[in-house]
Amino acid sequence: MTDMDRSVLVPALTNIATRLRIDSVRSTTEAGSGHPTSCASAADILAALFFAELRFDPKDPHHPGSDRFILSKGHAAPILYAAWAEAGAFDRAELLKLRELGSDLEGHPTPRLPFVDVATGSLGQGICAAIGCALNARRIGSEYRTYCLLGDGESAEGSVWEAAEVGAQDGLDNLCAITDVNGLGQSRATMWQHDLEQFARRWRAFGWHAITIDGHDINQVLDAFAEARATKGQPTMIVAGTLKGKGIAIAEGKEHWHGKALKKGEELDAALNELKSQLVPEEEPVAKPQAPRSVSRPAPKRGSLGTLPYKLGETIATREAYGSAIARLGASDDRIVALDADVGNSTFSEKFEKQFPDRFYENFIAEQSLIGSAMGLAARGSIPFPSTFAAFLTRAYDFIRMAAISNLNIKMAGSHAGVSIGEDGPSQMALEDLAMMRAQPNMVVLYPSDAVSTEKLIEEMAYRPGPAYMRTSRPKTPVIYGNDETFPIGGLKVLRRTDTDVATVIGAGVTVFEALKAHDALKAQGRNIRVIDLYSLQPVDAETLTQCARETGGRLITVEDHYQGGGIGDAVAEAVAAAGFVVERRLCVHEIPRSGLPDELLDHYGISARHIVAAVTSKAR
Amino acid sequence: MTDMDRSVLVPALTNIATRLRIDSVRSTTEAGSGHPTSCASAADILAALFFAELRFDPKDPHHPGSDRFILSKGHAAPILYAAWAEAGAFDRAELLKLRELGSDLEGHPTPRLPFVDVATGSLGQGICAAIGCALNARRIGSEYRTYCLLGDGESAEGSVWEAAEVGAQDGLDNLCAITDVNGLGQSRATMWQHDLEQFARRWRAFGWHAITIDGHDINQVLDAFAEARATKGQPTMIVAGTLKGKGIAIAEGKEHWHGKALKKGEELDAALNELKSQLVPEEEPVAKPQAPRSVSRPAPKRGSLGTLPYKLGETIATREAYGSAIARLGASDDRIVALDADVGNSTFSEKFEKQFPDRFYENFIAEQSLIGSAMGLAARGSIPFPSTFAAFLTRAYDFIRMAAISNLNIKMAGSHAGVSIGEDGPSQMALEDLAMMRAQPNMVVLYPSDAVSTEKLIEEMAYRPGPAYMRTSRPKTPVIYGNDETFPIGGLKVLRRTDTDVATVIGAGVTVFEALKAHDALKAQGRNIRVIDLYSLQPVDAETLTQCARETGGRLITVEDHYQGGGIGDAVAEAVAAAGFVVERRLCVHEIPRSGLPDELLDHYGISARHIVAAVTSKAR
Repeated sequence: MTDMDRSVLVPALTNIATRLRIDSVRSTTEAGSGHPTSCASAADILAALFFAELRFDPKDPHHPGSDRFILSKGHAAPILYAAWAEAGAFDRAELLKLRELGSDLEGHPTPRLPFVDVATGSLGQGICAAIGCALNARRIGSEYRTYCLLGDGESAEGSVWEAAEVGAQDGLDNLCAITDVNGLGQSRATMWQHDLEQFARRWRAFGWHAITIDGHDINQVLDAFAEARATKGQPTMIVAGTLKGKGIAIAEGKEHWHGKALKKGEELDAALNELKSQLVPEEEPVAKPQAPRSVSRPAPKRGSLGTLPYKLGETIATREAYGSAIARLGASDDRIVALDADVGNSTFSEKFEKQFPDRFYENFIAEQSLIGSAMGLAARGSIPFPSTFAAFLTRAYDFIRMAAISNLNIKMAGSHAGVSIGEDGPSQMALEDLAMMRAQPNMVVLYPSDAVSTEKLIEEMAYRPGPAYMRTSRPKTPVIYGNDETFPIGGLKVLRRTDTDVATVIGAGVTVFEALKAHDALKAQGRNIRVIDLYSLQPVDAETLTQCARETGGRLITVEDHYQGGGIGDAVAEAVAAAGFVVERRLCVHEIPRSGLPDELLDHYGISARHIVAAVTSKAR
Repeated sequence: MTDMDRSVLVPALTNIATRLRIDSVRSTTEAGSGHPTSCASAADILAALFFAELRFDPKDPHHPGSDRFILSKGHAAPILYAAWAEAGAFDRAELLKLRELGSDLEGHPTPRLPFVDVATGSLGQGICAAIGCALNARRIGSEYRTYCLLGDGESAEGSVWEAAEVGAQDGLDNLCAITDVNGLGQSRATMWQHDLEQFARRWRAFGWHAITIDGHDINQVLDAFAEARATKGQPTMIVAGTLKGKGIAIAEGKEHWHGKALKKGEELDAALNELKSQLVPEEEPVAKPQAPRSVSRPAPKRGSLGTLPYKLGETIATREAYGSAIARLGASDDRIVALDADVGNSTFSEKFEKQFPDRFYENFIAEQSLIGSAMGLAARGSIPFPSTFAAFLTRAYDFIRMAAISNLNIKMAGSHAGVSIGEDGPSQMALEDLAMMRAQPNMVVLYPSDAVSTEKLIEEMAYRPGPAYMRTSRPKTPVIYGNDETFPIGGLKVLRRTDTDVATVIGAGVTVFEALKAHDALKAQGRNIRVIDLYSLQPVDAETLTQCARETGGRLITVEDHYQGGGIGDAVAEAVAAAGFVVERRLCVHEIPRSGLPDELLDHYGISARHIVAAVTSKAR
């Protein structure tokens, strides 16, 4: 949105595009790997975007009023870095450290760089995050705009069409995406090659304003951005026809050049000379980024749960307490937002929606968009709580993985976890969610058993930076903690202990109550056991677990409504290994379960009180 | 495709639809849960489909020439069961055991039932599997047709649009899908409610033939099926406007009736009376399923690798050996098919494509469709090998989960796993793939280190029924096994052993070579270690691992190019726990890694030979 005269602007942008190509070629050759041809196709688009359209401050990329740019085709990272260097964010010489261990200029962009909102490099994700950035602008009442560059091959990812639906449904006219249709994928030509109408037709059918242009014609690119800005009530997709390797004769429009750096020596030199010859005469003033709009917002305030209302022994599902907690925190902290995927009446995110409809984002049945939007919201300062059935978070595992790589502040909740859901059967059970979440090294993984611990842990996870996951349960469970109890992340609760405990039984969520029942049954037989509520699986309280092992004859029994791999058994085993202890028995679900009544299934699959009693008594001490 | 006169057929089908509604209402009420209103909207479609269109044998659902029907909206399971009962597959009285632990009539369909090809209940998956069923018809040269019923809410899932692209690209005119547009989701109205054109427009934009009809008008349903059959070169989507709860006044077209059974007593009785009053006079002959087409195919033959060509010490990447192996097996067994997602030149599935282009299915960049299609192919007797970067299999985790629930014969391969890929950075690394796969209790998980073991394990996994995963690596590694070595699933190889080993080091894939280097370095210092190649992580050889622990002073050290959770460390810890042993040190990737050179990263993240040496020598013995 510069007001420079086109006769001055276009030559300036043309030269910037050429410099970006030169930088992309140089840096990838220096690194010995990378995707220079995927950069070259996008150079004119990026030049026009960064130096005539975006409003941003290269020295303060996180400015709250700054326009956002997400490179969904993350393999074109070198040209993203080149554009920021050209804008003055850092010294151009840094570009030659591309892909080195000591540099933040990684093979694909990550938020280690201040100007990267979300890590990209798994295709089809950036556009989902862009939705979140655009939603955040609405939340903070800013006119900042969000731009996103996709590849054409990437458009085959279903997540792109989830984003398309949500973007249109929400009428996000502050969002402008561009598809760089260079016609060539990694292994072959893309599905539609240069048939731009195939793309435009799809986006229009999904409710977007679509414009087809020659992506190497700067005037057309500038006009398309202006048209997008003028379009109200719907997002815009600019479908830009380009050539992969544009400007480099050896590679331009040719197959077998994907992800290949030019060789040092003759190959590189020829390409650089060729590119330099494409520089045109230009005059003052030089094109430079436009400053961001100012934003005046009160400083954010930490939310508070206030006084919790629970009575010991009353029964309430942890999923319901989850809904109460986010609504409570949301009342005093408007950074808290909630997202769901058409199961808000089951996850109880509807409690939040009812109170704060403007900060609730419905994704219908589209879990990739659910997590992807949350990623974008988190990148812009929201504290998003996306929720769905825990089973369906598996649908978004690639997004969760990338959120972890980005170390984003997203707070996921998965409800209806375990065979304890009962009759709906295995497709709804999520018996691998703890494994999937614990595998991410920076993910906090929480699994509360009652309403009080749920609410307190939601507060903890909301204000601990980084990604976190809470598993909630379907059945109602009794409140076992007082309203003033505290639940630090990385802690656990010893619920039963004597000096004569013969074993330690470690459960979480619904199995805590099975362990308590087993405790009572064993006590009636004259045996004491220690019972632990392991509400924090990651990080885990290795010290207390080890101490309990020492104090209970080294006998540790875990019990979990989860498959064997990656859950409570593994967490405990790993925690106590340093002291030489092992988990003696892992009570868990060992096979694909069936439909049935919740209690019947707990018993049938070996995780009920009866099985705990048997495990404790099986070994004479 | 019945030739019955419409004047006889339509009343007959109308009554069948009414009976299916009655069965759905009765069975869900008896179960006390379920989705009767989601059944009622689809009743006329199912009646027409099963009794006037499909060619199948209710007593032999797996007949190779039988038309396929996949209920993508799996929560409508009761009406699927009712239709098969009506067709004579089993006694109608069984329907009242819906959702009981002892019955295969689960809350959502699973292949425990012979007439269910793939488990559904995670929305947006059935249509991907239907693509696989349709592709299989081509493979075996059969004219069987594939039908798939989706919900309207389900259409928000991106996977549906991945299937749409692939189905059109492959010109699958033997595929007919129906969207049951009842306008109501779980928590609210669907995105487009009853605007049928919104759906048709999207499908047409994606290259399908689309027809809009009143889904309660049997004549229109029959005409649409006929039109689909007559449509050549593209698949057909029938967009059927319906009412949720159709025929049951209390619920028809009303919100808050999703997933709710009618109450026994007055509520049920009123609904049943109402439905019975909808029965119309009908005459002979009764509508019944049409018999399947005959198929004559030679009996399948097990493939053979023949004589392997490798020389000890030559270097070759396991991913390349993977490509060779599937091509070798495919030469003698035409059930072997391969699928990829535009990275066939990296996964080396291109070796298969070059030899057997008709049995290679390109999914472009769409990993959900990749696995979903493979599920459908597997269900129909193909032995599919879908491959992509291991990192991007996370994109399909929900499909992998459902493939495990279905116990389908799919053979996944993930390449480029670990920091050993080097410069591309964390988004491409897959440091959680072993965790994600091991979490599924029936998944075979293999991780070969050299070309010979890769090929032998591909043969093993091809012919062991059920789901399996192989992790392959990017770097070239030396061949360490002779061409005649055998690699049973569930085994391991002890590569170095003496009677004086001070510790056992357990690696797999690239870390086997780090362990061997460490062995040599330690030996030079006068210390012997045992080195294990744990090529089979699931199942795992607990006995040999335990024996090695016993023989090496209880000292076990694992080393893996994977995050800590769910990989080799956990597999070994769990395997040796029964004998009281622990893993002393787990060398693995403890944080989100960066770009760098492969060897540099192995060392930087603590999994190189140097770190193994340090771990072995850190503890004085």
